[in-house]
Amino acid sequence: MSFERDVTDPFVAKAVELAAIFDQDAVERDKLGGRPIEQIRLLKESGLPSAQIPVGYGGRGASWLSVLRVVREFARTDGSLAHLYGYHHLPLNLVLFRGSSAQKDRWLRASAAGHLMWSNSGNAMSKTSSGRRIDNGWVVNGSRPFSSGSHIADYIQISWENPEGERLTAAVPADRIGIVIENDWDGIGQRQTGSGTVRFKDLEILDEELISSPNIPLTPYTSLTSLLQQSVLLNVFVGSAQGSLEEGREYTSTQSRPWIYSGVEKHTDDPWIKRQYGELYIKTLAATELADKAARSLDDAFNQGPGLTAGDRGAAAIDIATANVYAGEAGLAVSSEIFEVMGARSATNANGFDRFWRNVRTHTLHNPAEYKRRTIGTWLLSGEFPVPAMYR
Amino acid sequence: MSFERDVTDPFVAKAVELAAIFDQDAVERDKLGGRPIEQIRLLKESGLPSAQIPVGYGGRGASWLSVLRVVREFARTDGSLAHLYGYHHLPLNLVLFRGSSAQKDRWLRASAAGHLMWSNSGNAMSKTSSGRRIDNGWVVNGSRPFSSGSHIADYIQISWENPEGERLTAAVPADRIGIVIENDWDGIGQRQTGSGTVRFKDLEILDEELISSPNIPLTPYTSLTSLLQQSVLLNVFVGSAQGSLEEGREYTSTQSRPWIYSGVEKHTDDPWIKRQYGELYIKTLAATELADKAARSLDDAFNQGPGLTAGDRGAAAIDIATANVYAGEAGLAVSSEIFEVMGARSATNANGFDRFWRNVRTHTLHNPAEYKRRTIGTWLLSGEFPVPAMYR
Amino acid sequence: MSFERDVTDPFVAKAVELAAIFDQDAVERDKLGGRPIEQIRLLKESGLPSAQIPVGYGGRGASWLSVLRVVREFARTDGSLAHLYGYHHLPLNLVLFRGSSAQKDRWLRASAAGHLMWSNSGNAMSKTSSGRRIDNGWVVNGSRPFSSGSHIADYIQISWENPEGERLTAAVPADRIGIVIENDWDGIGQRQTGSGTVRFKDLEILDEELISSPNIPLTPYTSLTSLLQQSVLLNVFVGSAQGSLEEGREYTSTQSRPWIYSGVEKHTDDPWIKRQYGELYIKTLAATELADKAARSLDDAFNQGPGLTAGDRGAAAIDIATANVYAGEAGLAVSSEIFEVMGARSATNANGFDRFWRNVRTHTLHNPAEYKRRTIGTWLLSGEFPVPAMYR
Amino acid sequence: MSFERDVTDPFVAKAVELAAIFDQDAVERDKLGGRPIEQIRLLKESGLPSAQIPVGYGGRGASWLSVLRVVREFARTDGSLAHLYGYHHLPLNLVLFRGSSAQKDRWLRASAAGHLMWSNSGNAMSKTSSGRRIDNGWVVNGSRPFSSGSHIADYIQISWENPEGERLTAAVPADRIGIVIENDWDGIGQRQTGSGTVRFKDLEILDEELISSPNIPLTPYTSLTSLLQQSVLLNVFVGSAQGSLEEGREYTSTQSRPWIYSGVEKHTDDPWIKRQYGELYIKTLAATELADKAARSLDDAFNQGPGLTAGDRGAAAIDIATANVYAGEAGLAVSSEIFEVMGARSATNANGFDRFWRNVRTHTLHNPAEYKRRTIGTWLLSGEFPVPAMYR
Repeated sequence: MSFERDVTDPFVAKAVELAAIFDQDAVERDKLGGRPIEQIRLLKESGLPSAQIPVGYGGRGASWLSVLRVVREFARTDGSLAHLYGYHHLPLNLVLFRGSSAQKDRWLRASAAGHLMWSNSGNAMSKTSSGRRIDNGWVVNGSRPFSSGSHIADYIQISWENPEGERLTAAVPADRIGIVIENDWDGIGQRQTGSGTVRFKDLEILDEELISSPNIPLTPYTSLTSLLQQSVLLNVFVGSAQGSLEEGREYTSTQSRPWIYSGVEKHTDDPWIKRQYGELYIKTLAATELADKAARSLDDAFNQGPGLTAGDRGAAAIDIATANVYAGEAGLAVSSEIFEVMGARSATNANGFDRFWRNVRTHTLHNPAEYKRRTIGTWLLSGEFPVPAMYR
Repeated sequence: MSFERDVTDPFVAKAVELAAIFDQDAVERDKLGGRPIEQIRLLKESGLPSAQIPVGYGGRGASWLSVLRVVREFARTDGSLAHLYGYHHLPLNLVLFRGSSAQKDRWLRASAAGHLMWSNSGNAMSKTSSGRRIDNGWVVNGSRPFSSGSHIADYIQISWENPEGERLTAAVPADRIGIVIENDWDGIGQRQTGSGTVRFKDLEILDEELISSPNIPLTPYTSLTSLLQQSVLLNVFVGSAQGSLEEGREYTSTQSRPWIYSGVEKHTDDPWIKRQYGELYIKTLAATELADKAARSLDDAFNQGPGLTAGDRGAAAIDIATANVYAGEAGLAVSSEIFEVMGARSATNANGFDRFWRNVRTHTLHNPAEYKRRTIGTWLLSGEFPVPAMYR
Repeated sequence: MSFERDVTDPFVAKAVELAAIFDQDAVERDKLGGRPIEQIRLLKESGLPSAQIPVGYGGRGASWLSVLRVVREFARTDGSLAHLYGYHHLPLNLVLFRGSSAQKDRWLRASAAGHLMWSNSGNAMSKTSSGRRIDNGWVVNGSRPFSSGSHIADYIQISWENPEGERLTAAVPADRIGIVIENDWDGIGQRQTGSGTVRFKDLEILDEELISSPNIPLTPYTSLTSLLQQSVLLNVFVGSAQGSLEEGREYTSTQSRPWIYSGVEKHTDDPWIKRQYGELYIKTLAATELADKAARSLDDAFNQGPGLTAGDRGAAAIDIATANVYAGEAGLAVSSEIFEVMGARSATNANGFDRFWRNVRTHTLHNPAEYKRRTIGTWLLSGEFPVPAMYR
Repeated sequence: MSFERDVTDPFVAKAVELAAIFDQDAVERDKLGGRPIEQIRLLKESGLPSAQIPVGYGGRGASWLSVLRVVREFARTDGSLAHLYGYHHLPLNLVLFRGSSAQKDRWLRASAAGHLMWSNSGNAMSKTSSGRRIDNGWVVNGSRPFSSGSHIADYIQISWENPEGERLTAAVPADRIGIVIENDWDGIGQRQTGSGTVRFKDLEILDEELISSPNIPLTPYTSLTSLLQQSVLLNVFVGSAQGSLEEGREYTSTQSRPWIYSGVEKHTDDPWIKRQYGELYIKTLAATELADKAARSLDDAFNQGPGLTAGDRGAAAIDIATANVYAGEAGLAVSSEIFEVMGARSATNANGFDRFWRNVRTHTLHNPAEYKRRTIGTWLLSGEFPVPAMYR
């Protein structure tokens, strides 16, 4: 097939290896939901969780292009692992963007050394946890929804509101007393992302675990988190399109029978089947190219560091929004239409081909394409970039 | 909502009642798969299984428009029951089309009296059962796939190949020794249709149970079975689109939150949400209108009886193919896009909204839209109607 | 072909005859723009301009279904004549809706007797003409854009603003001194509709020519004008789709050559060509069915007369908006995609097949589909009908 | 806007300058058709016609990426000049691919020195010219259709069939006696490409003007001509999408009025307008990225020279087919949908915005997307590259 991965990139090469292993029981694990424990163990063993940590902190300084291609590779068979690996970089880079020098030293080095996995339990749309001040920190109660990765994380980024209603954020070890992972994720897709509720029961947070403060405004650089999030999602979509097309191609070539009125002996000789695969490939390649362009724009912005200008941040935001919308559409179309060329016998739970559609359908909802289109259009018509904020 | 059902039609009125009951556990039963035993009991109690049987045989002579609207109504919440009820009419009318007077008397009257359910285990694309001649009949061994409804049927229409490779068909009580329902249906949708394997172990068939013979050619009238099949499927699609839109509307109105950047207080005040519901409604209404037109064409053809001309049969075939293609597309589009206007929290297994997409995706594969398009195009370009045959 | 016209309807039968004549030079007249003088003469001769006038006033009381099917028939070859004939009914029925008894007697009877053509120069979005009061009437100066039909009309409905900024409307003979038809219509399509500027130079209007007054509020019944307008446009779109498909079918069957790599001897044997024609037919039939449904709803509303309820007016508005959006999309798709199956040699000015796309593209812009979708969605979500007003 | 041209590329920079001049009367010249004489003079003056000629022959050795971006730039306002400039490279490179050393020396040097324009009158699908052998050459009679550029060319590549039915090809000065340019191009778009008939009246061809011979088979390298052709067309489509979007953006920002029910003061504040521009941009950017990727693949293949392998030629063919299909779809969609956001007053002949749609619609027909999709699908399913040939 043509979505050739650049395996001269060592991170991608490693991801190709891992994805082959993940693929062995991806369908079964999709049914089970829950925790991909063994897969996370292998992921850590591979060193990929620390790939993107700067060399200065013991990481390998991988580019976003590399990291996002790893995400994409995993999503070719397992959208959940792609998501977990990708989202891991959000809290990790929040430390980089907004943490103190001491925090960076402590957490980034520890993460690099132990290939620790991070997750995030600070959904900004739900003010459902609150903290009260204690001597040297906070006691937090309540819960946060959509806490992807909390079920397999070593560190969790946690948010709550203080009595003034301001959001505070901290990083804590996942095994701290007071953190309860509810394991109540019930999505129709992305079944092993553990994107459910984390409950806080008198959870104690130390001041030194606080990341930045609500009074320090976002800068173009520190607001890159929302672009990371969109980038991860879009590469899950692209990988899902690629995986769906790849599995479909394999099934069609080896299992599908020609339609009774086709007049051909091999299903793949039906002009319809050829044309339809051509169409699905075109969509998938366009999504892949836009995703690569967006990843390069993200690298350009990220590499400018704290001096990143609003304009360069904005240009990356537009490229990423563009790629995200297209990737979502392509992912949905390919993962649904592929059934038409595989035929009636393909649509079984045992085959599990529907997991691609369910995965893309689930996670395209977390940031409506409509609003990304408006963001792009606003910029096109007025030159205005989106104000950096969640999802933007 | 606007897909008002004509409840002056007593069959439709009854279906509306039943659908409300089916709806109570439709999501749960979708997960379970297996047999909708209680629902079939209620269906029989309603008398709907004998609605379409001619008055002369004790039925109520319902039009196809009525019957297919019942199918559509059920599919608004439960595609499986819609399918089971709809497909029941295929073997029943095979008796009418090709059975002897004695067979009609016996089976149609018994069905009318007992509201018996029929199913079909004679998939014509799989020559996987065979019979050997005995004194007054046949002994059949092997199996047949895609035997929708066999798990809840009173009577099963069975097919096998004789030693010359010709297909023979008979009707037998479902509880006859030698019939083994494998309950191995594993589709991603239409989960309670029981569309799996029926195995025959030295199954004895009496000559008087044979329906017609392979040597009697199809006529326009007796070939209406394939149009019935397409009609049932298309109305499952239309009902799925309606149901998906209806459940989405309810959820959006009561549960969805406005997007954080929408600037509106109610999600339904977002111009995007209004426009998108408008779009989904347009597709669904177009599908509904084409389905009604097709049902009326089917009635016109059917009511001509054995003298039905090839031209009139062909005209109905074109209308039905047209409605079928459009309904499949509308069903897929509405059941997928509805999530976008419901939002991220809607996509859970508990809500079960994805069953509509899975149902339509599963059963649109059983007769490729591509070939129906070609059939329509051939007629448009040349005036030639499809040669009556399976799926045509 | 299948878009069979019901020629048992005498108005439709007459339209079929006329359309055949219009077709003889439709391509040439599209290039010329200007006035279809001979065609309007034939139209009047046919009696169709008075078809819809109530029998009590000397007309034939044709239903809207008949009238709109005439519009559709003309649009199969000539969108301009379809538009002129259709729009003629707007001022004519404004007299019916809002005129005094004397005005109805005078104008409707005269129109029925002479098969007079009406047009409209009162675009409500442009306050570019004004009047000053004189003894027994008004003197109007200024101009009005988008005055379709003014170039061939016998009577023109004219609007202007009084000094208070209120819009007044009157009907005047087209040849009155002070009316200057600019003939400046420069649309890319609908080239003979004369939809340009009408200039008023000290145009005198008598009080008895005033239709209603700005202080009399719209009722559901008197607001039907905007539904008439939408109905005319949508039937122009449907007829354009049908005409494009019909001309394409003829060309493909007789002129197109198979693609060099098709492996078929006749272009129409290419599965691609068959499938594509199937697809175009499905779209066109769906548009036709929705248009018929909408026309029947309009008749239902219209026939209630002045007692028409807001609900029944609203139901018609929704059906018409639905049909309008779909018809516009179908018209654009069919008239553009048809070239793909006709091939490279078809796209010449001599053939003139592009007039269908240009016609639909031009007139779909006069009432954005986006807002119609919102109107439909609002109703679906809330049950609220559009407030009667222009375009609604 | 974002389709920033890399003006550090001197060829692109020159093209941007020229395009601004072409833009001044592009709409008017589109109406006139005929010959863009002054524009061709400026083009020659710019030196762009010899940009791609190898340095060894006096050219500047521009990459295909540069050349095709020049094509794209021109197409932003004038598809005809884009086409003429692009197609000029087909006969020029035929000399390079298949000419003798002497021919290369003679023609390429002369072209580089004089910035001569080449065209092509050898449509391979029409065997409508024939030659008879004379002493030192041939006398050709007949004609060839679709001779784009012949009306402004310095040199014409001509083809005819010999008595054995084999196609021979030669290059001759455009002013040779016996060449009659019919100027009968009547396309609905690409109006100044002069793509009509060239007639040959006892046209004498010298043996030394023959390019290669029918007995020398195509190699992967010498078959690049068909990829050049597809590359030119696809960049006309991409440039048309960009130009349409750019002109639309300008018009919408400065001329369009908000819809009466929009509730906004500026049309560009309507969420619909923002979203729609976002959508059009996404399509256009995807087309642009795929076009750049395809151009780079073409460069990779071309730069291998005569040793080019079938595999590398095939990979370029797939990239180019992919980009071509997508670009055609994007070009059609953007150039049609742009009207919806500009509004009713935009659709005039004076504005001439419809030329983009007419240009793309015309030239997408010359190599059906359907067959390109099949080519891509065949490769995806089997690994087989298209057999090099016309259009492949």
